[in-house]
Amino acid sequence: MNTLRFTAETVADGVLERDFTVDGIAGNSDDAGIPGVLWSPDPGTYRAPLVLMGHGGGNHKKHPAMAGRARRLVDGCGFHVAVIDAPGHGDRPRTAHDEREIAVMQRAMATGEPVGPVVVRYNAHLAERAVPEWRATLDALQGLPEIGTGGPVGWFGLNMGTAIGVPFVAAEPRITAAVFGQHWPEALAEQARRITVPVEFAMQWDDEHIPRSSALELFDAFASREKTLHANAGRHKELPRFEADSAVRFFARHLGARGTAASAGRAPGVSAVTAG
Amino acid sequence: MNTLRFTAETVADGVLERDFTVDGIAGNSDDAGIPGVLWSPDPGTYRAPLVLMGHGGGNHKKHPAMAGRARRLVDGCGFHVAVIDAPGHGDRPRTAHDEREIAVMQRAMATGEPVGPVVVRYNAHLAERAVPEWRATLDALQGLPEIGTGGPVGWFGLNMGTAIGVPFVAAEPRITAAVFGQHWPEALAEQARRITVPVEFAMQWDDEHIPRSSALELFDAFASREKTLHANAGRHKELPRFEADSAVRFFARHLGARGTAASAGRAPGVSAVTAG
Repeated sequence: MNTLRFTAETVADGVLERDFTVDGIAGNSDDAGIPGVLWSPDPGTYRAPLVLMGHGGGNHKKHPAMAGRARRLVDGCGFHVAVIDAPGHGDRPRTAHDEREIAVMQRAMATGEPVGPVVVRYNAHLAERAVPEWRATLDALQGLPEIGTGGPVGWFGLNMGTAIGVPFVAAEPRITAAVFGQHWPEALAEQARRITVPVEFAMQWDDEHIPRSSALELFDAFASREKTLHANAGRHKELPRFEADSAVRFFARHLGARGTAASAGRAPGVSAVTAG
Repeated sequence: MNTLRFTAETVADGVLERDFTVDGIAGNSDDAGIPGVLWSPDPGTYRAPLVLMGHGGGNHKKHPAMAGRARRLVDGCGFHVAVIDAPGHGDRPRTAHDEREIAVMQRAMATGEPVGPVVVRYNAHLAERAVPEWRATLDALQGLPEIGTGGPVGWFGLNMGTAIGVPFVAAEPRITAAVFGQHWPEALAEQARRITVPVEFAMQWDDEHIPRSSALELFDAFASREKTLHANAGRHKELPRFEADSAVRFFARHLGARGTAASAGRAPGVSAVTAG
């Protein structure tokens, strides 16, 4: 049984932020457990759907992109939102293998060589380590009364969050809707073909790292009857900020803008999102 | 000088609907003038941006898709929204040429042959007739005090509304943002390469009429620095309804959710749209 321990708690502008650690993951070499963060509408006791978010490569669970998306999901929909540090990221130690692959990646970046092959390979390795951690984290989060079992659960992860998310969602029937994007089909297309939940997928039309045809190929692979591609003009890092709002609306449509209240109805300060 | 005459007026749920006719279009064979409809926030005296909408082939200015999108734009953004009947559509007479081309199209539909070649050819012909009519209509609409000159103007047209809209927007510097989609690149790509305003483009990933690569080719042709492709799983007629909401948000971002009030500020009942 995986235990979730809360280690810190702050409240800002109606959003409760709780740091946590998940212990006892079988085969996990990190003695310190898996560090994560759970954002909720304050006071955190309202039962609501959960969105799991995967952060990008080189980032961590509280990167501004994660905190910003979490606030949109909490403010806009009243959801709970959880992120854990990926292996070798954030507060977690790097293995010798991590260090070697990061060095290869940085060399490719510096010399202008294609980074795709090493990113695909290293992210596939990280996904193998991360998927069991995410399953254990989801087990532990569903043990909280404000989340519980059986409710809708979303996955939101671009870049490395897609490299980890696609195999996770393919293997995890509890995920009911997912936002992915900005990755290569190699190592992911086969698992994408097993995913049938609604999917929103973001790509950059002028991505200097991921060929246009590769992004389209990965989107095409999802078996979902309901899937949407958003392709924006611009380079890899120029993903428009309004795509985060689009993801929030996607989750509002598919997870339900408010779950059943475990205690006293609508959380204060939670504004409605019109589900298109 | 083109004259706009209002011929009928109704109000429903805060939306003013005014039928109009634009007379005096040089070289126009329709003696009756161009019939159109203008939707506005009641009472219609508030100065606000204008969205021009092109209807689909075989439809007309007050088709439910037009009325529904107009209501979203009026309610959500306080915009004025105008549609005119395309040549040979709605209240307008068909020429012998129209009848011949429609018969060819219907034969192709009935026998399961590709409709693309005849739709492309016939729509290009209609666009030649429609573009001067749209320019005259825009002249006349900008003569109304609640619209005026110099303000932002949007174009919103899918299918035949794209076949007419792409040459119109390419030739018309007054259009400042456009939503297109669901058409072939033949006859349009060259003009799309002259369009630089922000564009949102919708396609269906499993369109049985428009090959996937054709739709992507037309999206790619737009010279706009800011352009977004929305591709949804499903066949030609299965475009999800939430794409209409996306178009409303696109226009809210690019035209400004409310223009300057010509009389007394915000129109009653106009709700805000969050521009992502």
